[in-house]
Amino acid sequence: MIDPHIASAFDRDLEAIQAMLMKMGGLVEASILNGAEALERRDLEMAEAVRAGDKAIDRLEEQVNEEATRVIALRAPTASDLRTVMTVIKISANLERCGDYAKNMAKRTTVLAETPPVGSASVSIRKLAREVQMMLKDALDSYIQRDADLAQQVIERDEDVDQLYNALFRELLTHMMEDPRNITPCMHLHFVAKNCERMGDHVTSIAEQVIYLVTGEMPDDARNKQDETPFMTDEG
Amino acid sequence: MIDPHIASAFDRDLEAIQAMLMKMGGLVEASILNGAEALERRDLEMAEAVRAGDKAIDRLEEQVNEEATRVIALRAPTASDLRTVMTVIKISANLERCGDYAKNMAKRTTVLAETPPVGSASVSIRKLAREVQMMLKDALDSYIQRDADLAQQVIERDEDVDQLYNALFRELLTHMMEDPRNITPCMHLHFVAKNCERMGDHVTSIAEQVIYLVTGEMPDDARNKQDETPFMTDEG
Repeated sequence: MIDPHIASAFDRDLEAIQAMLMKMGGLVEASILNGAEALERRDLEMAEAVRAGDKAIDRLEEQVNEEATRVIALRAPTASDLRTVMTVIKISANLERCGDYAKNMAKRTTVLAETPPVGSASVSIRKLAREVQMMLKDALDSYIQRDADLAQQVIERDEDVDQLYNALFRELLTHMMEDPRNITPCMHLHFVAKNCERMGDHVTSIAEQVIYLVTGEMPDDARNKQDETPFMTDEG
Repeated sequence: MIDPHIASAFDRDLEAIQAMLMKMGGLVEASILNGAEALERRDLEMAEAVRAGDKAIDRLEEQVNEEATRVIALRAPTASDLRTVMTVIKISANLERCGDYAKNMAKRTTVLAETPPVGSASVSIRKLAREVQMMLKDALDSYIQRDADLAQQVIERDEDVDQLYNALFRELLTHMMEDPRNITPCMHLHFVAKNCERMGDHVTSIAEQVIYLVTGEMPDDARNKQDETPFMTDEG
């Protein structure tokens, strides 16, 4: 930008918005871990806390949107500054979706607590959730550090998440075949597993945004991955 | 805006972007209908056309994003003009997700074609998809006409979609209990049904954006609906 005052004013505004985004990211990471732990331990109090906590995440997304729009109107950023603000808006939308999936995991915990445990499925789900949370942490770091390499690594790790999900999908199918009484709990566990896999897709999308921000190029090999994995399971 | 030249230039740019958005909406509506028809008729050629067609939808979303960003940088719109551009960006993201779900329905058709038909599930799914497509049409009309009442009606109709989904969920559970050989096809049919229900949530989110654009108030009663319905089915 030409005017250094405007530039520095923009930078201060952007820092404030990024702080909100990072706070949002921290809350979402915690929801994912706590949601999975509540599911495994059938801890209804912890599950309820995750459900309640999603409201704060939703509010933060609204704040990020309002602030970003205000900054665009006030500072009229151009080129890379504008691209950065647009990226922040998109990342906050991905975070909000992850928060919804974590909340949903917590809701199913209340339902699943009334059904018999199905093998070690909830342990596998916790592994899956843990992997997604670590990917999210790195994706947010890659944004702050403008590190396209780290973002690329996050995208590649989504395949591990897909594989964990596929193994779980087969495990659940087996339990359903074995005993019809497992069908209802397995349907819910499968939703939880699928939602973890979807969170991985949203984290991947965050990493793609970072690469776009840093390089100006959008990687399209990782596009539209959600819901692809079950087809792999048909072969497995 | 003060300067009529800038104002009219912005309006021309906005019209061009809205034209892209409407084209995108038309393609998504067609994908939803054709995806469901291909599933019911087990028409693999039609399914393949839906899969291939999603690329055009993705490209349109990228164009909408690029154009919207360009217009913001070039025209520096403020207040309601800026809000309109931000709304267009959000609506195009919702449309892109609906396109992905339709593509996914088409992919599962290839898998389901190799399994025995399960009752009249694919007929019910087509009803569900048809309802979502009509909601989407009205949501896009409500945007163009800036009609908050029509948008509110769309939001309320999402409950019909949820009910159709719940009935289907119970139907599939019954088939799975009856015969384990139904489990695999039912898992796929359930995904398709769930994705239709999720499309309804994205259409609802479009209608919410329209209400926000027209009234300045975001209705929050319809927020975060996705994945809630299976809990109702536990009572049913």
